[in-house]
Amino acid sequence: MSLEKLTKVRVVGSGLIGASIGLGLVQRGVLVEMVDADAKAQSLANDLVGGTKLNNPEVVVLAMPTSQLSLVIAAENALNPNSTFIDVGSVKSEVQLKVEAISGLSRRFLPTHPMAGREIGGAASARADLFQGRSWIVTPSRDLELESKALVLQLINLLGATPIELSAADHDRAVARISHLPQVAASLLAKQLTGTPAEWMELAGQGLRDTTRIAASDVALWKEIIFSNRVELKQLLINLQNDLGTMIASLDDPEKIAGLIAAGQAGRALIPGKHGGKAREYSFLPIVIDDKPGQLAAIFNECAVMDVNVEDLIIEHSPGQLSALITLALSLSDAEKLSSHLSMIGWNVHPIRN
Amino acid sequence: MSLEKLTKVRVVGSGLIGASIGLGLVQRGVLVEMVDADAKAQSLANDLVGGTKLNNPEVVVLAMPTSQLSLVIAAENALNPNSTFIDVGSVKSEVQLKVEAISGLSRRFLPTHPMAGREIGGAASARADLFQGRSWIVTPSRDLELESKALVLQLINLLGATPIELSAADHDRAVARISHLPQVAASLLAKQLTGTPAEWMELAGQGLRDTTRIAASDVALWKEIIFSNRVELKQLLINLQNDLGTMIASLDDPEKIAGLIAAGQAGRALIPGKHGGKAREYSFLPIVIDDKPGQLAAIFNECAVMDVNVEDLIIEHSPGQLSALITLALSLSDAEKLSSHLSMIGWNVHPIRN
Repeated sequence: MSLEKLTKVRVVGSGLIGASIGLGLVQRGVLVEMVDADAKAQSLANDLVGGTKLNNPEVVVLAMPTSQLSLVIAAENALNPNSTFIDVGSVKSEVQLKVEAISGLSRRFLPTHPMAGREIGGAASARADLFQGRSWIVTPSRDLELESKALVLQLINLLGATPIELSAADHDRAVARISHLPQVAASLLAKQLTGTPAEWMELAGQGLRDTTRIAASDVALWKEIIFSNRVELKQLLINLQNDLGTMIASLDDPEKIAGLIAAGQAGRALIPGKHGGKAREYSFLPIVIDDKPGQLAAIFNECAVMDVNVEDLIIEHSPGQLSALITLALSLSDAEKLSSHLSMIGWNVHPIRN
Repeated sequence: MSLEKLTKVRVVGSGLIGASIGLGLVQRGVLVEMVDADAKAQSLANDLVGGTKLNNPEVVVLAMPTSQLSLVIAAENALNPNSTFIDVGSVKSEVQLKVEAISGLSRRFLPTHPMAGREIGGAASARADLFQGRSWIVTPSRDLELESKALVLQLINLLGATPIELSAADHDRAVARISHLPQVAASLLAKQLTGTPAEWMELAGQGLRDTTRIAASDVALWKEIIFSNRVELKQLLINLQNDLGTMIASLDDPEKIAGLIAAGQAGRALIPGKHGGKAREYSFLPIVIDDKPGQLAAIFNECAVMDVNVEDLIIEHSPGQLSALITLALSLSDAEKLSSHLSMIGWNVHPIRN
């Protein structure tokens, strides 16, 4: 079998994801037609990405919330009986069911999930490089044709993403644990702040900010994701609820409290560090700076001079103060090198933490 | 009443907090004696801070975990019958009870809580400026003498911190909500990662990292804090458990899910922004950079050139990739200014998010 080359793609749905796919493919020389139920949105999207009317696209991308898939899937299949299909939703088992309900479609439909952030925004926010360097999960069914799979992998590679193959069930279990459960935990934790006096909130530190950051996420988006993945999520929520119950029952027993905190520490250590490696042990170098333009630039200049690679950075502002504490995450050797260099030239450097 | 000037302070306990208090006061011209149950640690601490043998200190600082207070409080009171006392523990009601159990002591004992981070480390990690720009909560009882209170406020101001007055009960309620509850939630959430396949963990994004960051905290420290504040914490944990139960029972009802996520969004919005103001609405400017030294410096140089103040920064590394996505938090006008400037000179700038 000689592999078909991807030359024509029909993108149904012109939100951020659809329009970004269109833009990225056009920039790589693929002809694209943008399609939208709204005629004006469709015309705008084609203008934006440089789209054109197409017949017989090799791939049709269904770039819409999974709840809207049912509205278009049969019609698009009838219209493009030889095309390969993908969707881009956050939950995959229900897509698989929808596909299997249409005779023969599962041979030409590969459910996918680009891990490209969840920025809100329509076609106007689209970027050709939205998927560059991101993971793009594919969940092929057993009867998917090789030719179809090869076309989709071409599409993903053209957009600069890395395809990762999982079963639909494993995908949904994985994202339930690493994405949907943390979202529910953060939202319900933030809900507990309701009614807190403003003077108490003034004392909030980085811990509260970090643990609740994603509670600010889009409500409509998460309503759909949580509902779609409720089967996988339910047991995880019950486990968390049970562990909360254990903590409540253990409050009079310091050793049991310690056991639960230690189990959390061990779980946290499973999160890998950058470049997909195992979690690396960074050293942390705190530096007090004036909170004004130019201070961070000056520090990063010194990092460049000393050939020090900053792995991460935390900026903390004290309430009511005009100074800020920045903490650089570095390798231990870089932290030691930078610490003595910065101290020598007069920066307010605190001791390295590991 | 003329106010007594702070000239002599006895610091009992030579861990990070005690030694930092000693160092900071010596640098401001106050005579300090460091005291430790361990003779060697005591001698080292006095060498480190420039301590000296003292009689009749105006203030005695009990810088040890609250669980160890009972061991020294009576002896120190007998030894220094005219001195003012403070402690520095994370929970205050139980300290108040310990103090009230000793006749007359509550007139000269002010429980306090410096909000100076929880770095682990002994005297060797001490810093004279550990408390600079931090809040330092004081929880005076009704019979505290004015002279004692004035001495403690002098001490706090000398160390560069801002005293904030709360009742012991309010302090414990406030930190239960803004610090201890988030710690338990993060620890129990991270505990759910136990046994997750490594391939799934590779897909972890910034949301999981942020929500579980503090789960890596010191177990012994949190064992004591949670146990000490269990009375205030219990109802908050039960509320969270109940909300989890409501979510579990609502999984088949998208509108109820949306209601819970929206309540979390509203709670999150109560967290104030920098400088103690109301939460500011930052704009976020994502930029793709090569993951090598000098890239961040170059960007911060452009920020300085354009007079743009970076409020916060997030660095994300894609698994297996050598590029990184950095996101700058800026005012909207700064984001717009910087975005067009960086784009013009060839940086890979993504659209501004609000």
